Amino acid sequence: MRYKCIVSYDGTNFHGFQTQLNSRTVQEELEKALAIIHKERINVLACSRTDSHVHAYGQVIHFDSFLDINERNMKQAINSYLPSDIYVKEVIKTDKSFHAQHNVFEKEYHYLIDLGEYNPLYSNYRMYPEYGTLDVEAMKDASSVFIGEHDFKTFTKNYETTNTIKNIKSIDFILDNNLLTIKFIGNSFLYNMIRIMVAMLVEVGYHHLTKEDLNAALEAKNRKYAPKLATANGLYLVRIKYEDEKSE
Amino acid sequence: MRYKCIVSYDGTNFHGFQTQLNSRTVQEELEKALAIIHKERINVLACSRTDSHVHAYGQVIHFDSFLDINERNMKQAINSYLPSDIYVKEVIKTDKSFHAQHNVFEKEYHYLIDLGEYNPLYSNYRMYPEYGTLDVEAMKDASSVFIGEHDFKTFTKNYETTNTIKNIKSIDFILDNNLLTIKFIGNSFLYNMIRIMVAMLVEVGYHHLTKEDLNAALEAKNRKYAPKLATANGLYLVRIKYEDEKSE
Repeated sequence: MRYKCIVSYDGTNFHGFQTQLNSRTVQEELEKALAIIHKERINVLACSRTDSHVHAYGQVIHFDSFLDINERNMKQAINSYLPSDIYVKEVIKTDKSFHAQHNVFEKEYHYLIDLGEYNPLYSNYRMYPEYGTLDVEAMKDASSVFIGEHDFKTFTKNYETTNTIKNIKSIDFILDNNLLTIKFIGNSFLYNMIRIMVAMLVEVGYHHLTKEDLNAALEAKNRKYAPKLATANGLYLVRIKYEDEKSE
Repeated sequence: MRYKCIVSYDGTNFHGFQTQLNSRTVQEELEKALAIIHKERINVLACSRTDSHVHAYGQVIHFDSFLDINERNMKQAINSYLPSDIYVKEVIKTDKSFHAQHNVFEKEYHYLIDLGEYNPLYSNYRMYPEYGTLDVEAMKDASSVFIGEHDFKTFTKNYETTNTIKNIKSIDFILDNNLLTIKFIGNSFLYNMIRIMVAMLVEVGYHHLTKEDLNAALEAKNRKYAPKLATANGLYLVRIKYEDEKSE
């Protein structure tokens, strides 16, 4: 029996998703809850390894279980053993034909930038740009450089073992009362890719860089041309769509 | 030279405003920042002693200083030494005629209840009611019992040394996409008073209590009739208005 779950979490107090020695992780908390229910160790596999302090509304995981429990009861059981900063939104009974990391059609991430005065209540949930206002129109215009299929080697930290050619389907800018949400949809993203792209777009917003600089950085295929990294607190994994959900 | 400041903070990681031994408090952090600027100890006095985990958008404090610095620079200086969960929104130069705890005209507190599905990203910022939906209309109707001048002895923990007669000017209910905000305006509030009133109103929302029960509890002048306490994470100190700001 394989269970697929859609999971949300507040990344503030986690060292990312994946289990690490001596660090609190989302995977560890999920596996602890499942171990209580199953009275033995159960492994959890996630679609995306989110970084420290990155939030999620739509992480997808799967685990195999010898228990045949209905979806509603399994959801309730897991949530009753989870800490307050993780929540299973949906449990779907499935079989071995589903794998959290296979047949991903697209992923959606949001990055939140607050253009208003600093608010300590959002300090873990939004990026506050260091210097004054951002030219959002210039950022939007420059972001078109990233749309489509490109080699994003410039925009990642570790690429030795990865295919760095990715397809970004859309980047949308929504400005609502000083809160800028940048919505990225792509087939998949490299390690740190969105945070590096956001850091470069912010430089364009300050008029420190131009659209042409971003294009040159992309062409260079070298991280040296995009050395900055936007803070993790503004990043949210919002949705993962699988091949068989394409039409939805 | 006396400085008045309007301060916001995320109460999640504080044991309230007032300095306590071996606990992180807002007062302690403010005094640490001021000690760096003044190179000597500076005492901070706040209008309201918010409890552990209670948030503030409009706490008012004052401190006396031998430094004559303009408001903008003082604001910048303090904020540069504060941790990310406290922020000074405004600094106003004043004199001994102003005292943070004197001549308060009214205070406004908001209490946030999320009627939607649990969201771990709001776990420190909203109350999630334990059992299902709330009858908001019934809560609104019952809240009228509290409006006006009453002896609120039932609705506090410690009252030995306090005048328990308080005047609640208004209680407004705003429901926006499953987020219920209850806005309390009054001349002043007793220790835990809003959290006890909210807990009673939630019981009305569940149809466990009626408006008449609330009225009887108020008349009883005994905490035994209102034993519950709503969680601190939903409470926000929003605004403090002084006598000379009445017309604003």
